[in-house]
Amino acid sequence: MNIQDLALHTDKYEINMMYAHWINGTMNDHAVFEAYFRKLPFGNGYAVFAGLQRIVEYIQNLRFSEDDIQYLAEQEEQYDPAFLQMLREIRFNGNLYSVQEGEIVFPNEPLLRVEGTILETQLVETALLNFLNYQTLIATKASRIVRVAAGDGLLEFGSRRAQEADAAVWGARAAYIAGFDATSNMLAGKWFGIPTKGTHAHSWVQGHDSEEESFMKYANALPDQVALLVDTYDTLEKGIPNAIKTAHMLERKGKRMQSIRIDSGDLAYLSKKAREQLDKAGLDYVKIVVSNDLDEHLIFNLKAQGAKVDTWGVGTRLITAEDQPSLGGVYKLVAREKNGELIPVIKISGNQEKITTPGKKEVYRLVSQTTGKAISDYITLANEKDVLTRNRIELFDPVQLDTNRFAENFKAIPLLHPIIVNGALVYDLPDLEQIRSFHREQLELFEPELLRLLNPEIYQVYLSPKTWQLKRDMIREYKKEVQLERV
Amino acid sequence: MNIQDLALHTDKYEINMMYAHWINGTMNDHAVFEAYFRKLPFGNGYAVFAGLQRIVEYIQNLRFSEDDIQYLAEQEEQYDPAFLQMLREIRFNGNLYSVQEGEIVFPNEPLLRVEGTILETQLVETALLNFLNYQTLIATKASRIVRVAAGDGLLEFGSRRAQEADAAVWGARAAYIAGFDATSNMLAGKWFGIPTKGTHAHSWVQGHDSEEESFMKYANALPDQVALLVDTYDTLEKGIPNAIKTAHMLERKGKRMQSIRIDSGDLAYLSKKAREQLDKAGLDYVKIVVSNDLDEHLIFNLKAQGAKVDTWGVGTRLITAEDQPSLGGVYKLVAREKNGELIPVIKISGNQEKITTPGKKEVYRLVSQTTGKAISDYITLANEKDVLTRNRIELFDPVQLDTNRFAENFKAIPLLHPIIVNGALVYDLPDLEQIRSFHREQLELFEPELLRLLNPEIYQVYLSPKTWQLKRDMIREYKKEVQLERV
Repeated sequence: MNIQDLALHTDKYEINMMYAHWINGTMNDHAVFEAYFRKLPFGNGYAVFAGLQRIVEYIQNLRFSEDDIQYLAEQEEQYDPAFLQMLREIRFNGNLYSVQEGEIVFPNEPLLRVEGTILETQLVETALLNFLNYQTLIATKASRIVRVAAGDGLLEFGSRRAQEADAAVWGARAAYIAGFDATSNMLAGKWFGIPTKGTHAHSWVQGHDSEEESFMKYANALPDQVALLVDTYDTLEKGIPNAIKTAHMLERKGKRMQSIRIDSGDLAYLSKKAREQLDKAGLDYVKIVVSNDLDEHLIFNLKAQGAKVDTWGVGTRLITAEDQPSLGGVYKLVAREKNGELIPVIKISGNQEKITTPGKKEVYRLVSQTTGKAISDYITLANEKDVLTRNRIELFDPVQLDTNRFAENFKAIPLLHPIIVNGALVYDLPDLEQIRSFHREQLELFEPELLRLLNPEIYQVYLSPKTWQLKRDMIREYKKEVQLERV
Repeated sequence: MNIQDLALHTDKYEINMMYAHWINGTMNDHAVFEAYFRKLPFGNGYAVFAGLQRIVEYIQNLRFSEDDIQYLAEQEEQYDPAFLQMLREIRFNGNLYSVQEGEIVFPNEPLLRVEGTILETQLVETALLNFLNYQTLIATKASRIVRVAAGDGLLEFGSRRAQEADAAVWGARAAYIAGFDATSNMLAGKWFGIPTKGTHAHSWVQGHDSEEESFMKYANALPDQVALLVDTYDTLEKGIPNAIKTAHMLERKGKRMQSIRIDSGDLAYLSKKAREQLDKAGLDYVKIVVSNDLDEHLIFNLKAQGAKVDTWGVGTRLITAEDQPSLGGVYKLVAREKNGELIPVIKISGNQEKITTPGKKEVYRLVSQTTGKAISDYITLANEKDVLTRNRIELFDPVQLDTNRFAENFKAIPLLHPIIVNGALVYDLPDLEQIRSFHREQLELFEPELLRLLNPEIYQVYLSPKTWQLKRDMIREYKKEVQLERV
């Protein structure tokens, strides 16, 4: 793993607020933040949480180097040297609770809960959101593609179009979590053990006097993984016939060609013709890989047209989440210390959906004991543990505060897990294969109507009566205050 | 600088092709690749080249670690140990020619030319494209915003929504090159010397019993950089009045409040009302900063509505290039060694625009001696140097191969500069302020009609007669060959 020095990967306002707390003597006040997003990306019915491993590595490695301190000392603001000395010693000694990677998650439920001094909890905001937002976005995009591919092979090919190196590598990992089979990025292969795949580029063909010669030479060099790119000159007239000759040459050596790849043209038509040509030549075992600006919509259409494709190579549109390149995850203060007590806090907004839900919270998935399927998610205050033992509970809509219903005969599964407690890792980070299986299992909890690409059913996240009451009371109190001021 | 170990940040097919060249004894054959993009992003009239510093650091640091070799050894393909030994020793000993950072660039002209053994030139493809594509994309997006802001302050605020950490940091740098004034990202500040700016978050206000108290405490802690976020509760009813009290408190201490920031609501209306309230309170020196999903279109509209904004904080839509999150830069083989000679190569495609222009090339900007403005760019074969001395030249359209015109009375400025020669850096990497000034100067070469956001004039990139002839001849030769085969 490539541990980077990321303490300064933070917004200046975090450092300024830390400084102001330090000056005002409030730096050790306890604070609780929760991270969540408000809206699902791509019109999808769910999101796939990813980013926890990166977050844990970041937190465990969090310290300001002498270089960093030097840089802060030279900033125009002239932070007090005693503040800088304090920064030198700062470590994350708080708690991190998190949803597990690969978990299916929904809007407005806490995905991370960060507890500690206001200093340490404020410092980590930018990096945590940066990692969570990108990795969850890509895992979700990948999950849509996985559903459409419906068992076909899927390769992540996006490195050259990714938004810089970290995106290429962590994006490859997020795609693998959601069910992709391999990546082209070797660093992702090395860091995470993701299987890597690759054919050759057009430049390999151009680098020889003829396509046939280039295929033969490639096949001789790598006889056990011959995957030939057949569209450098003319796919059906030249590429496939040359690939067929190469496959027959390999057969004479007792080897089998793996696949051909088509990277341009009408992929529906070409893949069908290619399949015919290969089959006619007795090469029904040679797979067809296609690539070229694919995404879930194009794959869906190509499959509907009967394209004969075994494996889809997906690049740009996955690794950048082209149709919505950001997830709007936020990190909000929900409780703070006042006179030694932890009190809930709320953020009011003219926009109803932007009003935060106050208090330190837990979130549960309610699974029907009858069907084994998820009914809804359920947010409680952290000290309400009776959801685990009760059989019937009341559910409140978090936005339409006056709507309620009931759930019964359910099993409540807590979604937030202790990851770091008092600065120490208490969670066994699963390996990537475990995360991938966990993700697959979680999907089984949901009905296909929620998992479909277009107009999925909406899955509800409800509040417990106490959470609802607290939110309603705090909004009322705020409104009363504003009215009094206006009188 | 944070030098990462990025040798494996490459696609597997690069390693496979290297292996195949090694097996076939062609690994030391000379090759020339050129990188370019085919289409301008965002409907803009130009792009702003960025990424060179990153590319140079990557190339200079390029070596496989023992870890990397170990990983490759464990891959299923079982690369020959002698190949791995060769990789252990590989360094980039070739040449890199590049356009300078901050340069104005156009489609289909070489931005990088990479020369060396096929081994080393193939290895660097993925990383070079990854850096060039993202950084050029963001510099171009930022440039659009800079033009619309027309002298107002511009802050880059996107870290939490960037596509992972590298994107946040290198994206902040690209935005600064194009004319942004500062970033919120402290790591970008430390690495590149970009000025950093920050106010405080809503959590600062929520962390106190009242907004007024929170403002006063912030102002006491950082009296020389008081920038207050006024929309936590109610911008006009509470936020601004509290900010005014704070500013008056600061005045009594002989200090001046810097700014207020509005992050939600109707920014046109609120900024105008805020300006009125501040002015009425004698605070005409307090600046107004706004943020909230801004981009060039929204800024243009807010300005048209007479919004009273001094500084725009731009986040998500800049750092992800939301409306087009990738630049389709490609890296194409243009010449290769055959029997000891360098011969041009072409990539044919059914799509006319995807046919490459063969041969090792140079690109010049033709600047009118009369107006001092750029006339067009001009691509020649690398050995045609007479463009620098001739007064009248013939220009050929690269796609419509039969159209030609003439240019005269121009100065020809070469755009590609030697950066690395035989593996050694021969170029003084300019500092960021120099790049920024260079960029500003280059913009002066172009007419405003080309620089406008909507439907800009199209700037032409032409081929020299020799380049045009080579391309035409190679296409004809290819077509003849295909026809013969079909007979």
